Amino acid sequence: MSQFRKDVFTGRWVIVAETEVVRTENFHFRKFTRETTFCPFCETHEASTPPEIFAVRPGGSLANGPGWKVRVVPNSQLRLRVEGELRRRPEGFHDLMNGVGADEIVAETPRHDRSLHELEVNEIADVIRTYVARILDLEQDKRIRYVLIFKNHGEEAGAHTITHSISELMALPVTPRLIKAKLMAARDYFALKERCIYCDVLHQELGEQRRLIAENDDFACLAPFASGYPFEAWIIPKAHCSAFSRINAVQIENLARILRDVLQRLEHTLGSPPYNLSLQDRPFLRPREGYWKTIEEDFHWHLEILPQLIGLTGFERASWFFYNPVPPETAARCLSA
Amino acid sequence: MSQFRKDVFTGRWVIVAETEVVRTENFHFRKFTRETTFCPFCETHEASTPPEIFAVRPGGSLANGPGWKVRVVPNSQLRLRVEGELRRRPEGFHDLMNGVGADEIVAETPRHDRSLHELEVNEIADVIRTYVARILDLEQDKRIRYVLIFKNHGEEAGAHTITHSISELMALPVTPRLIKAKLMAARDYFALKERCIYCDVLHQELGEQRRLIAENDDFACLAPFASGYPFEAWIIPKAHCSAFSRINAVQIENLARILRDVLQRLEHTLGSPPYNLSLQDRPFLRPREGYWKTIEEDFHWHLEILPQLIGLTGFERASWFFYNPVPPETAARCLSA
Repeated sequence: MSQFRKDVFTGRWVIVAETEVVRTENFHFRKFTRETTFCPFCETHEASTPPEIFAVRPGGSLANGPGWKVRVVPNSQLRLRVEGELRRRPEGFHDLMNGVGADEIVAETPRHDRSLHELEVNEIADVIRTYVARILDLEQDKRIRYVLIFKNHGEEAGAHTITHSISELMALPVTPRLIKAKLMAARDYFALKERCIYCDVLHQELGEQRRLIAENDDFACLAPFASGYPFEAWIIPKAHCSAFSRINAVQIENLARILRDVLQRLEHTLGSPPYNLSLQDRPFLRPREGYWKTIEEDFHWHLEILPQLIGLTGFERASWFFYNPVPPETAARCLSA
Repeated sequence: MSQFRKDVFTGRWVIVAETEVVRTENFHFRKFTRETTFCPFCETHEASTPPEIFAVRPGGSLANGPGWKVRVVPNSQLRLRVEGELRRRPEGFHDLMNGVGADEIVAETPRHDRSLHELEVNEIADVIRTYVARILDLEQDKRIRYVLIFKNHGEEAGAHTITHSISELMALPVTPRLIKAKLMAARDYFALKERCIYCDVLHQELGEQRRLIAENDDFACLAPFASGYPFEAWIIPKAHCSAFSRINAVQIENLARILRDVLQRLEHTLGSPPYNLSLQDRPFLRPREGYWKTIEEDFHWHLEILPQLIGLTGFERASWFFYNPVPPETAARCLSA
């Protein structure tokens, strides 16, 4: 019999099928394939992007030329602009503000023929250090409340034309609804238990092992109990910390190692699936957010990996409910094998 | 410049592009095409489905034979079962219950060669009457708190193999997260204003006309101010009512008329796009829901039509934020032309 499972982090319910067998005939995704037309994110094509905002250039090469490891540029399909006033205002009944924020592309490698899981650990560590540098820089801008970092790999994940390995960064003047839901659930839990809900789940999952995919000294990778997506995987730091940007040098190495490992397991188990990856970080500590006083105790940053093996239907869109045909215990068993 | 717009009904923000021109090259959907292999939902194939639960049989034909207009059967890919106990229980830290509920398919027409927008008004009215009959029947089952009715039309909407015109019905022992979010926002608004938030938005939109797609005596169809999907359309009854099942005979005719009209406009304007349709109804009045005392004043049922013209990306999945490249004013102008 299937089960209703409650996601304690958001209050959302998921219907999880009962099966120990993964029916791949229910999956309908296109394997990742690389476009070979001209790519603006390749080394030597630097002039095809707007001027760079940040780059890892170990040899001290010049900005906007070759010789970089990771390179950050403004998104040329600009959804948000850095310049201008936010101008929060009503329009009759409605609420709006100008599209002020940052919209950046992180080219994770100069090479077109490598996906994130094919990079070396030290190369992935450079990507992580780049995220940290951009967050710390954007934290200075008082209009910004949240930096969202995410990645679309493959068509069903939303990468329709770009196949170079990139992440995207959007700096937003409001905290996203999903993060707010997680903050509120974490705050309510802490108020009841005086403990962090993520630390508590980690404690149980490391003990039970049934949904553990991988671990090292600093991180654990879990198939969440109420996974909404088949083969969903979360990477959670073992030590409590609300802000990703406080990560230390050893943790960066260990995060790069576990991320590479888990992405390779997904690649091999599922056959080049599309996936989304995102950083679930706390907002900046601005005075207007009602929860800021306890946020450092309440919240615990993590990475979400959401393979896109089946599409959404009206069921999910009309309800924010999820249907997951692969129990997370089955997914963890496949991925940890 | 783009705008951040707040959806007052859920608290979610949307980035809306600034454009008066619809760039169809940004859309990437497959036009709806009909499968012609054997279909269990066609007239004379009744033996290929489980026994029917309900049918509109004007000539008094026998159950599970031909002669029907609308026919409801259990979903053979059963995600939930009607039999059994819910058994709410913890599993260590986690919360779960058995997959008890109903999972039904509504065949909207006996003919394989008609989509919903190609049916006559009286045929669509039969579908609406069928929804009402199923909701009233399921309301008797005290384990059920919510009936979700939705439709997937086309591949990107989730109809990967079935192209016969059907809707799906899931009866759930919990109220979905999206409905809860809408109920809470509506309750908070009523507490402040002593008016229904849907009635107030309707009042403004009928006055301004900029986001009005269509209307008749009983219903208005709007492009919501903070539409998350390009060409999103809501059909809202003009008279305040929280429960869809209280709809009267004249309203049923007018709902069929406006739904057919709007679906035909989408079909012709966008070229056979995939879409999801859903009924956003209030939950049944069970004592455990904290909001039940004022729900009839607070909430106002409506239909959501979500065309699936662009896929989701990591941005939406990581944040519950939305990016909409088509301003609703532009969409309404195209659709109402």
